[in-house]
Amino acid sequence: MIATHSLQSFASDNNAGVHPRIMQAMADANRADAIAYGDDPWTEALAACLGELLGPACRSFPVFLGTAANVLCLQAMTQPWEAVICAPSAHINRDECGAAEAIAGRKLLATVPNSQGHGKISPRDIIPLLGARGFVHQVQPRVVSITQSTELGACYSLTELRELASFCKERDLLLHMDGARLPNACAALGCSLKEMTADVGLDALTLGGTKNGMMFGEVVIVFREDLAAALPFLRKQGMQLVSKMRFLSAQLLALYGSDLWLENARHANAMASVLAERVARLPGLEFVHPVQTNALFVRAPRRALARLREEFFFYFWDDGTSDRPVARWMTSWSTTEEAVGCFVDRLQAALME
Amino acid sequence: MIATHSLQSFASDNNAGVHPRIMQAMADANRADAIAYGDDPWTEALAACLGELLGPACRSFPVFLGTAANVLCLQAMTQPWEAVICAPSAHINRDECGAAEAIAGRKLLATVPNSQGHGKISPRDIIPLLGARGFVHQVQPRVVSITQSTELGACYSLTELRELASFCKERDLLLHMDGARLPNACAALGCSLKEMTADVGLDALTLGGTKNGMMFGEVVIVFREDLAAALPFLRKQGMQLVSKMRFLSAQLLALYGSDLWLENARHANAMASVLAERVARLPGLEFVHPVQTNALFVRAPRRALARLREEFFFYFWDDGTSDRPVARWMTSWSTTEEAVGCFVDRLQAALME
Amino acid sequence: MIATHSLQSFASDNNAGVHPRIMQAMADANRADAIAYGDDPWTEALAACLGELLGPACRSFPVFLGTAANVLCLQAMTQPWEAVICAPSAHINRDECGAAEAIAGRKLLATVPNSQGHGKISPRDIIPLLGARGFVHQVQPRVVSITQSTELGACYSLTELRELASFCKERDLLLHMDGARLPNACAALGCSLKEMTADVGLDALTLGGTKNGMMFGEVVIVFREDLAAALPFLRKQGMQLVSKMRFLSAQLLALYGSDLWLENARHANAMASVLAERVARLPGLEFVHPVQTNALFVRAPRRALARLREEFFFYFWDDGTSDRPVARWMTSWSTTEEAVGCFVDRLQAALME
Amino acid sequence: MIATHSLQSFASDNNAGVHPRIMQAMADANRADAIAYGDDPWTEALAACLGELLGPACRSFPVFLGTAANVLCLQAMTQPWEAVICAPSAHINRDECGAAEAIAGRKLLATVPNSQGHGKISPRDIIPLLGARGFVHQVQPRVVSITQSTELGACYSLTELRELASFCKERDLLLHMDGARLPNACAALGCSLKEMTADVGLDALTLGGTKNGMMFGEVVIVFREDLAAALPFLRKQGMQLVSKMRFLSAQLLALYGSDLWLENARHANAMASVLAERVARLPGLEFVHPVQTNALFVRAPRRALARLREEFFFYFWDDGTSDRPVARWMTSWSTTEEAVGCFVDRLQAALME
Repeated sequence: MIATHSLQSFASDNNAGVHPRIMQAMADANRADAIAYGDDPWTEALAACLGELLGPACRSFPVFLGTAANVLCLQAMTQPWEAVICAPSAHINRDECGAAEAIAGRKLLATVPNSQGHGKISPRDIIPLLGARGFVHQVQPRVVSITQSTELGACYSLTELRELASFCKERDLLLHMDGARLPNACAALGCSLKEMTADVGLDALTLGGTKNGMMFGEVVIVFREDLAAALPFLRKQGMQLVSKMRFLSAQLLALYGSDLWLENARHANAMASVLAERVARLPGLEFVHPVQTNALFVRAPRRALARLREEFFFYFWDDGTSDRPVARWMTSWSTTEEAVGCFVDRLQAALME
Repeated sequence: MIATHSLQSFASDNNAGVHPRIMQAMADANRADAIAYGDDPWTEALAACLGELLGPACRSFPVFLGTAANVLCLQAMTQPWEAVICAPSAHINRDECGAAEAIAGRKLLATVPNSQGHGKISPRDIIPLLGARGFVHQVQPRVVSITQSTELGACYSLTELRELASFCKERDLLLHMDGARLPNACAALGCSLKEMTADVGLDALTLGGTKNGMMFGEVVIVFREDLAAALPFLRKQGMQLVSKMRFLSAQLLALYGSDLWLENARHANAMASVLAERVARLPGLEFVHPVQTNALFVRAPRRALARLREEFFFYFWDDGTSDRPVARWMTSWSTTEEAVGCFVDRLQAALME
Repeated sequence: MIATHSLQSFASDNNAGVHPRIMQAMADANRADAIAYGDDPWTEALAACLGELLGPACRSFPVFLGTAANVLCLQAMTQPWEAVICAPSAHINRDECGAAEAIAGRKLLATVPNSQGHGKISPRDIIPLLGARGFVHQVQPRVVSITQSTELGACYSLTELRELASFCKERDLLLHMDGARLPNACAALGCSLKEMTADVGLDALTLGGTKNGMMFGEVVIVFREDLAAALPFLRKQGMQLVSKMRFLSAQLLALYGSDLWLENARHANAMASVLAERVARLPGLEFVHPVQTNALFVRAPRRALARLREEFFFYFWDDGTSDRPVARWMTSWSTTEEAVGCFVDRLQAALME
Repeated sequence: MIATHSLQSFASDNNAGVHPRIMQAMADANRADAIAYGDDPWTEALAACLGELLGPACRSFPVFLGTAANVLCLQAMTQPWEAVICAPSAHINRDECGAAEAIAGRKLLATVPNSQGHGKISPRDIIPLLGARGFVHQVQPRVVSITQSTELGACYSLTELRELASFCKERDLLLHMDGARLPNACAALGCSLKEMTADVGLDALTLGGTKNGMMFGEVVIVFREDLAAALPFLRKQGMQLVSKMRFLSAQLLALYGSDLWLENARHANAMASVLAERVARLPGLEFVHPVQTNALFVRAPRRALARLREEFFFYFWDDGTSDRPVARWMTSWSTTEEAVGCFVDRLQAALME
């Protein structure tokens, strides 16, 4: 049997395992044969479930992973010469190894870095990018893509979302939300999924699964019929049509067909609060973003971080040149208070070495 | 609970469920946390396991699905102006919705259809495509991609494979094998995986999992160091870097770390033999390809097939204009003799209506 | 001054120089300044001229070269998962180094080679490629692209064109014509440009210039408003928006604003006739395609062809393995009877060596 | 005959016509036949000429236009997951309608906007983009692309160029120069082409033609053999292989085979100086960039600019929201002092209305 490390990870919410209820749903789906590629009863039930959660206009396309959900959705929303406006810290811009450009051929227009936003963008950031409409020499902005909660752990309020959606409508822009951690935002703000998406006027959504207790899988959701027509083909061509789809749909059903999505997110957020509270008591540390969901961004002495990282793998969030880099620590559905305690103890020890 | 059809499927080997030993391996991997993206002990053990099976030169890159394994592997093997020679019936040419062209930007050069080959190609088919080397107006053939066993159920013999590999070496071509059903070919010919791949001189291999009892996942295998350098980045950019990789690696370990891959393939082949034997006794049917592995291609009256298809979904393998189309029927690791009996009974009834 | 070869070329119609009236038109356009990128009076006049020639529904987009005209036009006509049906010998399939695949990301579906067609295709060739509509695993045929006159020198009759257009309409396919040598076809059949294009029901056309006396340039012509919307952006992004556009528009105006296009094509065709007549008298030669326009395809002993090629460069039209390969010889607007005589004399000598 | 506007343009150096000596060179090249696609004596002579100008390591690939020269060169310098660092104002980033992303599939990493640089970037701007080397989740910086002179009219000094080149070498980055207006920089700084390119350690160069008196055409120049191997195929596939190449090579020979490139650039720069001097005397205007070459960037009241633009077309260089936008005015090889006087008079009148 494979030997594993006994310590919990604070590197990312995808270092966690699979929630037992989701594991059970996969086992339950493993009976008899089922037609491949989504023509199965689990996928049918999932479409109905998401329709209830997000409204009847929603059309859903499960895929393997979040990068693909983002790229295929943005491809469906744009022509080749149309561009996607996003924050510099957006996952599509920073963490997908150029997939939007290489796979979909689309240019991303990152807004000017805005340290106040913690990964959020506002109409004010977008306006300077809209100057050249109709001018063939420049790509034409067509989509605004936001991340909720952001890659830096912040949440757009409902008011901010409504303002963005209404701005987009006025300017003939479509609004896309990368919701890899949307459940965490819903938990933080006490909103339903529908209030946060369909109700504010989103055109499309990438709905997360893997970071919230699933084994794999996210869903492309579109709220417009015209966007839905392209996706079956883009998904197949984009190498994301799951062969034994029932095992993805069953996971999503387990997560979104009950309150499990919310419970998991609430737990992750709660653990981040506990961690933040205890970290705040340690000397020499600085929170560079507020802790609204399940991520902490903490500036600390490089030596102490290096020491801590020998035991707990985590990512640095800077260019590697500073004496006091920023570390990202994340909690998940499976983080325990005990693990938080252990992590903080080691951190404290590292700081005092 | 989701209601499912009680009848077994003969539509494809991916209509089967997940083998219990593989399901167990996934459950076993679901303990504690593990670093994402492949830096985990299961993935490390898998690399060692495949190295033992296929030889020390092999480098392995698990991905979600076969289309991606093929496309990313062929992209790594070619420059943008280099082309891939394949059979017209090749999965990359016919069943991947243009992914090779749209995602990798590569042109496929299908050989002239050759009804004798049953999806196999030989040096004789390839030579006419090699006329324009160095001529910038035409794409430059660089890879020959074969499927073992073919999409039409046939197997290349070891002699044929060696002849192709040596032809490729002489002509400065690389040889790729789409091995989505390689286990079935090994079972049919009584060869080991290594005899069929590394030993004949393959440069790269797509090694199957989903069609042989896994939930999802295939592996890109390359036998040359220069091909291996590009793949980590192509896999991430190509939207195929599995986040919770341990659950893919654990499946592959369960399959290839024991003889399960061979047992499953042998069983599928054996069931196809039984089915073929019983179908052969029915009147008015014609086998258009020999039954070497786990697929039957049978020409039959359209009316009878339509009747049968009301109960058993399966694919037609023609353009829909003939009175006597070709149906494909496949068996899998989970097909039972009882199900074969039931299927043949219904077929017989449909033929006699 | 650059030293040049004194012999005329029979390699291709693009080995000829620029017709003096076109050269003059370029010199005439070289006065004062003009706004770049097509917002100039020459380009405006060209649009009007082509509207008169081809009908008011036509929208024109001049580009640098024929490969780009084809690729951008086909890209505008298709979604990423839609395919283009063409003859195996089509320029887009054989002579554009995979641009359709690499630049536009589109799959070409070449029909099964049909030696009777001399590069032409008919509904009968197309039907077998239409079997999988709506099936996400396969690309969806959307465009039929034909070449008039074909790469093998043959012409579609008006009847054949009408039959193709009506077949396409019935099957919800768009019809594109690669008209790099459309003037030669018009000259051969005695039709106007409009009779051959708009009147038969074409959806889009690549209209040639370079091979008929221009220095550079072809025109993408579309007959549907929906296709026209994408082209200004695709042309710029596709690296084909000519900066000093007036010099391209002035050439096209000189060619198509008078009968020069027809005179040039007639002359080229006439010289091909003379050449064919004289070649036909020589022993040991075989015409593999009828001579309808300005190209001859002649099978001859390799030794004689090699000898002739020492003096006259030309292309072989085979894979290089036969003892009696096929040579292509072309005439142009500038070919003289004297040059034909000289060429045939050398050929005769080479045959008798 | 086409009626044209009598006023000279200050919109761009590509609104000028073709220099008479270049026009003559094209006419001279129009004799006899010549093999197409570059196998002609003009192209051979051009390669020799550029080799003398830029050093024996240089390999040259003429193409139709600057966007293509940039995109194909950058594609040759990178793998799909490698990125190009550039200024936000770079032509590749701002004025090529997303060609680098859509055609080559490459991500551009624009540095943080730096108003001090006037379009130039320095190692300090680049360092923050180098943090994630070897990390598969992010594109890998491989090329630094600079523009000389910049899109904002500024020049890198030789010292700055050497510093950049040596920084790139240390960091395993390649250095590319977009030299669409390199002659203007050479004229401004009194350097030879070689001193500005090969001697500082450039890896590749896009050498301009169209903006300096040619009808069309630029040249991709590479100084490394490994980069040269891909370009013949990328150029053909990238729809940039000129059919009647002699007419492009003849232009480049006329420009770079004598001092014409320098004379033209000097003249354009001198006219910009005169214009700047006279504009500086007018009230209410502000130069937002220093005038080093042939471009002025002047902030002025929108009303006055709108009035002036009724007679003289020019581009705005902002997002259209300010009361005092920035206008770009350019001079060219053909600008006359008389035209400058006329332009300034109209500007003065517009300011006083």
